[in-house]
Amino acid sequence: MVIEKEFGPAGAADWAKTARRIAGIVKCAFGTGALYDRDVLEEKIKIYNTYGIRTMTGGTLTESAIITAGGYKEKPFAEYLRYAKSLGFTHLEFSDGSIYIPEEKRGDIIKMCIDAGFTVISEVGKKDPAKDAKLTVEKRIQLMQHALQSGSSLVILAARESGKGIGVMTADGKVMFDELDEIIGAVGLENLMIEAPNKGQQQDIFMRYGPGVNIGNVQPHDIFSAGALRAGLRGDTIKKLRADAWNKYHLSQEAPEGYEV
Amino acid sequence: MVIEKEFGPAGAADWAKTARRIAGIVKCAFGTGALYDRDVLEEKIKIYNTYGIRTMTGGTLTESAIITAGGYKEKPFAEYLRYAKSLGFTHLEFSDGSIYIPEEKRGDIIKMCIDAGFTVISEVGKKDPAKDAKLTVEKRIQLMQHALQSGSSLVILAARESGKGIGVMTADGKVMFDELDEIIGAVGLENLMIEAPNKGQQQDIFMRYGPGVNIGNVQPHDIFSAGALRAGLRGDTIKKLRADAWNKYHLSQEAPEGYEV
Amino acid sequence: MVIEKEFGPAGAADWAKTARRIAGIVKCAFGTGALYDRDVLEEKIKIYNTYGIRTMTGGTLTESAIITAGGYKEKPFAEYLRYAKSLGFTHLEFSDGSIYIPEEKRGDIIKMCIDAGFTVISEVGKKDPAKDAKLTVEKRIQLMQHALQSGSSLVILAARESGKGIGVMTADGKVMFDELDEIIGAVGLENLMIEAPNKGQQQDIFMRYGPGVNIGNVQPHDIFSAGALRAGLRGDTIKKLRADAWNKYHLSQEAPEGYEV
Repeated sequence: MVIEKEFGPAGAADWAKTARRIAGIVKCAFGTGALYDRDVLEEKIKIYNTYGIRTMTGGTLTESAIITAGGYKEKPFAEYLRYAKSLGFTHLEFSDGSIYIPEEKRGDIIKMCIDAGFTVISEVGKKDPAKDAKLTVEKRIQLMQHALQSGSSLVILAARESGKGIGVMTADGKVMFDELDEIIGAVGLENLMIEAPNKGQQQDIFMRYGPGVNIGNVQPHDIFSAGALRAGLRGDTIKKLRADAWNKYHLSQEAPEGYEV
Repeated sequence: MVIEKEFGPAGAADWAKTARRIAGIVKCAFGTGALYDRDVLEEKIKIYNTYGIRTMTGGTLTESAIITAGGYKEKPFAEYLRYAKSLGFTHLEFSDGSIYIPEEKRGDIIKMCIDAGFTVISEVGKKDPAKDAKLTVEKRIQLMQHALQSGSSLVILAARESGKGIGVMTADGKVMFDELDEIIGAVGLENLMIEAPNKGQQQDIFMRYGPGVNIGNVQPHDIFSAGALRAGLRGDTIKKLRADAWNKYHLSQEAPEGYEV
Repeated sequence: MVIEKEFGPAGAADWAKTARRIAGIVKCAFGTGALYDRDVLEEKIKIYNTYGIRTMTGGTLTESAIITAGGYKEKPFAEYLRYAKSLGFTHLEFSDGSIYIPEEKRGDIIKMCIDAGFTVISEVGKKDPAKDAKLTVEKRIQLMQHALQSGSSLVILAARESGKGIGVMTADGKVMFDELDEIIGAVGLENLMIEAPNKGQQQDIFMRYGPGVNIGNVQPHDIFSAGALRAGLRGDTIKKLRADAWNKYHLSQEAPEGYEV
């Protein structure tokens, strides 16, 4: 999943043509779509969809819509969903990173978004590091399981665009694998998308969980490096990922004969 | 104001189409225009102007022109101004970041540039952090007031492309708001453009002075994040900027009911 | 030499049109070309070649090809060379950053690549900083001289994409000029390409060796800043590079009269 906030239509088309084999979802982040003309946004979404790359609203925009509407049961929120759908978005990110939504309402909102025609991906995590730090691993797992039971197709473990000091990322951007292992064990690797904007994080995650793990918040131009890491085409992973020595979650650290320096 | 040194004509058009509602001025920085073919530069400038985005020469190029000419009164400098105008630039950045220009000559040069057809924006600050550190707040204010009196339409408080260790930015990129408040109080928020290349700086400045503040040296692709911050569409600003609780220079830190986590 | 892994065909064309006067070689890095459709890669290579910019495979891809083939004497490696040539690449980077190749075989492989129609550029350095640190300056020089004698048109002093903790770059990205002077003295400035991805490194290298030095692993959009540094159009170099006071390897630090602040 790529976090995108920079392309015009021509840039989107050029990127999608090149990235279509390795990109799954483009998230139009930060509500940036609201900053340019409607026809520009529609054109971009259409281009991504044409290349088989799914398109997702950013979660904060949905939060903003709920607040602006005065609550998710108010008419303007339903109108927001219709509007977003009419623009062409296939996916909607549901989150409460900046606002508070009680658990019973979360399920309702997810259902509303699904009924509006979206594939829903639910994010777990707070934008404010101090608030996010209060979420225990157990709480994150519970929120994720609830989101999946409510119909979310995937859950996102948030790390923001910075990848630092949020979720399972330490303040200097290291992955806390003890916590991540626990989350993956509980919700399943196939149900999780891990936001991992930095290359070191991406490499460490591919090394530990194999090329099948879903990563998110990749910058559009970084996807080629990430894809090369995943495919074992970079120096960092050539020996290990090429070894084809995967097990379910842990990669053999032994290199095959002939690979050693 | 965006600092631009990377687009070809197609990239410029694609970006301008997308950014036209939030971008005011594109600065063709570092004299990079001199590195590519004249027709490429002309085409880019025309595209920006067509989308209603004004175009500005970088200040160092003007300094280079003065030095190469052997002084601003020599014929080659007048030729440089004519040439820059013929390329289509609407704005000219006047600075003495790398050279020394006595105060009485500064007014003369600004007048020459206005007479040549440019809207002039004058930058205050030195490229060399050691030299820049010798400029007191009082001196900066005096230089800015003089530049405005001489006909500059705006003054720029320099922070270079790095945003670190120059002007009101500390070595690690924090904004020294005591100094900035003083400068704004003296020259007026509407007359100032604050170079703030880093997102944290942009966020802090929007939070303190509201969405009407002019920021500069934004990277072309960062303008969408900056615009989202300003509009309150990002998690960082959604609660505060949406509160519509601005006063002239200081933003209420209280969130409206219902926004709290 | 630019390290490129992000453009689609339209982006490549737009960039090449703008950069053609200052870019020499584009390296399609990280085997990223293998991640997108063959026709996309071919189109990009053709565009670069049309603008007079030469195109080079990344070295790790060649290493991967040797390993996948089961050795450089096996048929699939010859097929890889034919395939890369048929795509349009003019240059091939030969390296052993991730694998081990005994010295006698290095010459054989370089010859094979030349026979396959490539201009060969040989990189010296290891991807793993711990292994790279074991290469003494003397050993690097010996490997470079051997590569040149074997027919390489240039040798690359590796610094990876990060420019930190590899070759002559310290862990925090400073250039160790004692070592670099020694290497240049032994192999010749004109035979060397120095990977210098960071702007500070580029500036320091231009200041010391003049505008004729070859630098590599420049990001596509950074080439304009690098070109402006080299031409003396940036504040950092305006006074020194404009002074035209070069000697072979060391630049006079004295500014001409009239340049001083």
